[in-house]
Amino acid sequence: MSDAAARAFRRERLIRFSDCDPAGIVFYPQYFVMFNGLVEDWVNAMGVGYQRLIVEQRIGLPTVRVEADFRAVSRFGDSVTLALVVERLGTRSLTLALQCVGAAGELRMQMRQVLVTTSLETHRALEIPAALRDAILRGVPDEG
Amino acid sequence: MSDAAARAFRRERLIRFSDCDPAGIVFYPQYFVMFNGLVEDWVNAMGVGYQRLIVEQRIGLPTVRVEADFRAVSRFGDSVTLALVVERLGTRSLTLALQCVGAAGELRMQMRQVLVTTSLETHRALEIPAALRDAILRGVPDEG
Amino acid sequence: MSDAAARAFRRERLIRFSDCDPAGIVFYPQYFVMFNGLVEDWVNAMGVGYQRLIVEQRIGLPTVRVEADFRAVSRFGDSVTLALVVERLGTRSLTLALQCVGAAGELRMQMRQVLVTTSLETHRALEIPAALRDAILRGVPDEG
Amino acid sequence: MSDAAARAFRRERLIRFSDCDPAGIVFYPQYFVMFNGLVEDWVNAMGVGYQRLIVEQRIGLPTVRVEADFRAVSRFGDSVTLALVVERLGTRSLTLALQCVGAAGELRMQMRQVLVTTSLETHRALEIPAALRDAILRGVPDEG
Repeated sequence: MSDAAARAFRRERLIRFSDCDPAGIVFYPQYFVMFNGLVEDWVNAMGVGYQRLIVEQRIGLPTVRVEADFRAVSRFGDSVTLALVVERLGTRSLTLALQCVGAAGELRMQMRQVLVTTSLETHRALEIPAALRDAILRGVPDEG
Repeated sequence: MSDAAARAFRRERLIRFSDCDPAGIVFYPQYFVMFNGLVEDWVNAMGVGYQRLIVEQRIGLPTVRVEADFRAVSRFGDSVTLALVVERLGTRSLTLALQCVGAAGELRMQMRQVLVTTSLETHRALEIPAALRDAILRGVPDEG
Repeated sequence: MSDAAARAFRRERLIRFSDCDPAGIVFYPQYFVMFNGLVEDWVNAMGVGYQRLIVEQRIGLPTVRVEADFRAVSRFGDSVTLALVVERLGTRSLTLALQCVGAAGELRMQMRQVLVTTSLETHRALEIPAALRDAILRGVPDEG
Repeated sequence: MSDAAARAFRRERLIRFSDCDPAGIVFYPQYFVMFNGLVEDWVNAMGVGYQRLIVEQRIGLPTVRVEADFRAVSRFGDSVTLALVVERLGTRSLTLALQCVGAAGELRMQMRQVLVTTSLETHRALEIPAALRDAILRGVPDEG
């Protein structure tokens, strides 16, 4: 892949009251919700359109495998950076490496996620649409 | 461990409207919420009391690692069985094998989860409290 | 309406860790999720089938108005009773009175909710399907 | 109140996949989660610090009453504007008027919400802290 493809896609995210549990820290399933939002932002930033993919083309991006390590807690009010790198681009699947990093640069959580492109009618795997594949190979534009 | 400890703890669960996404299937982070509820039910069924552990003893059970495979979709209205087996009982950590199985016995999702017992004041690992350890070694009572 | 129709539909519900916020009490939007589950259980108990209504008949039950009063907090680990009474049965809409009551019988939260039956294709209001109307008029069977 | 206090506080928000239900529209309890985030942003924008209020000062902002009207659906991928105006500033409570407006300016949902300031130790009402009261009277800075 190109240098652009190897570049991480990053978004800042405030840890909200509604992300946290009675222990005052991020309820761990909420990390997956946050990363789902990051994937949405990434697909949108590449110009493919997450909503177009799902609603118009009826192509889903379900997760088939997740491996996640939780290294340090994130607390309500923290500002974190979520980062995404494409690790592997297959014919019908995609492996992402995702990280949540605190304001001081310390790793809070990291995961590897395998997504497949499926038909939302049959829930069967489809080839990754050319527009999405090309966009991934081009990589996200440098945002500075 | 005893036979009782090796026995799976099971609960039925209806897949609700609020568990599902615009594709009409379980939104994958919601599986982790469902399994969190199963762990709660399991700790309660062993007589330890999840609420007592967290609120009175100020002991948390955060997740430090998750590996999950999503094999088949679960749809809104499905009745599924959630099952839990203790795979490893360490000094300060606990490895659970969890499954979500459909009405016809087919595997929908499975995961391995490592939990640690921590102080909710410091978020540092603590030894698993004796009452919880003993209960795990005894195993859940046979519910038929 | 008949006596049966005037009878409240009730379900017990454990307040779970995932229902609560960093203050250790139910995060208020979660009450609406819990009541959504109660409406599901009620439609199912009347023999209409919530999943059948939504997925097969493509009839939605969106909320058009909610008035809610939060009287006392519910804490993680509490067992509460959720209750539903039909207050008004219109042609295309339905008004429900809902309550969440603690173990000692004290009112925690109450709300009035207006639902309409809509086409999930057009999101326009439809007449309440005869099967649902008849079931509501008959009332939920006495469960003791 | 001053002109600044009467001015609406606004934030744009993308309707995400995780906000939507199997009907492909915002699951109605999710509006309350979105508005909770808006209140957080508003308290932060006024320089009071939502996290400081809750975690350091142990002052909660629970909701005691909500009246909400849902006028039109919001779909996954929509960009909406969330707006907040203070309607009434009491001694221990605060009434907010909140709106969710679509890209074409059409009203999607509106609500009136009464919040009280409480001690997170006792869950009893407290006087609104002076810093928050003064900030509300000053109003949010003009952001253009």
